[in-house]
Amino acid sequence: MNERSVSHNTFTIERSYPTSPQRTFAAFSDPVKKRRWFAEGEGFDIDAFEMDFRIGGTERVTFRAPNGAVYVNHTVYQDIVQDQRIVLAYTMGSAEHRISASLSTFEFLPTGKGAKLIFTEQAAFFEHADGPKMREEGWSKLLDQLGAELARTIRSERT
Amino acid sequence: MNERSVSHNTFTIERSYPTSPQRTFAAFSDPVKKRRWFAEGEGFDIDAFEMDFRIGGTERVTFRAPNGAVYVNHTVYQDIVQDQRIVLAYTMGSAEHRISASLSTFEFLPTGKGAKLIFTEQAAFFEHADGPKMREEGWSKLLDQLGAELARTIRSERT
Repeated sequence: MNERSVSHNTFTIERSYPTSPQRTFAAFSDPVKKRRWFAEGEGFDIDAFEMDFRIGGTERVTFRAPNGAVYVNHTVYQDIVQDQRIVLAYTMGSAEHRISASLSTFEFLPTGKGAKLIFTEQAAFFEHADGPKMREEGWSKLLDQLGAELARTIRSERT
Repeated sequence: MNERSVSHNTFTIERSYPTSPQRTFAAFSDPVKKRRWFAEGEGFDIDAFEMDFRIGGTERVTFRAPNGAVYVNHTVYQDIVQDQRIVLAYTMGSAEHRISASLSTFEFLPTGKGAKLIFTEQAAFFEHADGPKMREEGWSKLLDQLGAELARTIRSERT
């Protein structure tokens, strides 16, 4: 009882994409695109994907692992500036217990060739959490998947 | 357009109170107590105070300054462990624009004489924000007011 049950951590990941800030932002605001790069990972079934992209709106993704374990990602949008910034708070956990709460900031900056995305995660990890190393690896993989989604956008515009 | 519009900061404030973790926690979970130490500051009128203390529940406090400016503090409870931990996400701003989004963690630890509160603020400050120094001073004052509220609890139990 005398021990702390929370550890805090902040990390930043930067990525450059060949799409404009507007197109990059659209991969977050369009539920069809967001579901593709954010939720449809390997080895997990999606039980539910509900998204209400507006300030104060919520998003809930429920995954089922091959062993039947259910994971819930629950998001509340805290701030949105069209094509420039998205700030959201999310928790990760099972249906009953959360293992973490985070504040995530996505900044979309124009570059000569497309967009720079600066992602900042400010996390509080609870008992049985993955911790900052695994979380950063997880987000790095997601931002790779975002890159694949944006490449798909470019291909579909050329055809 | 090429400049970042967000700056991130984390700070921690520790306080010791003569009340048990249970009594200290109650000053957050009881709307009458919370309103007294959190919302009723000097020089501001409270236009609204709505609080739904449960995971996923929201809290909204609307203040009006003497010059008529309206400030909104909007909270979503992210995690609650009875008598041990509260994690919430909140935004500060006017009715139209947010100046910050934060993740706040309150840990309640037993001591020989009462409770230690460890408060951690992980904040993202936007345009026209107060910034980390003023924010930390603001929270420090609030935690003083919490101390006064807890002293009031002790006095009322003695009478």
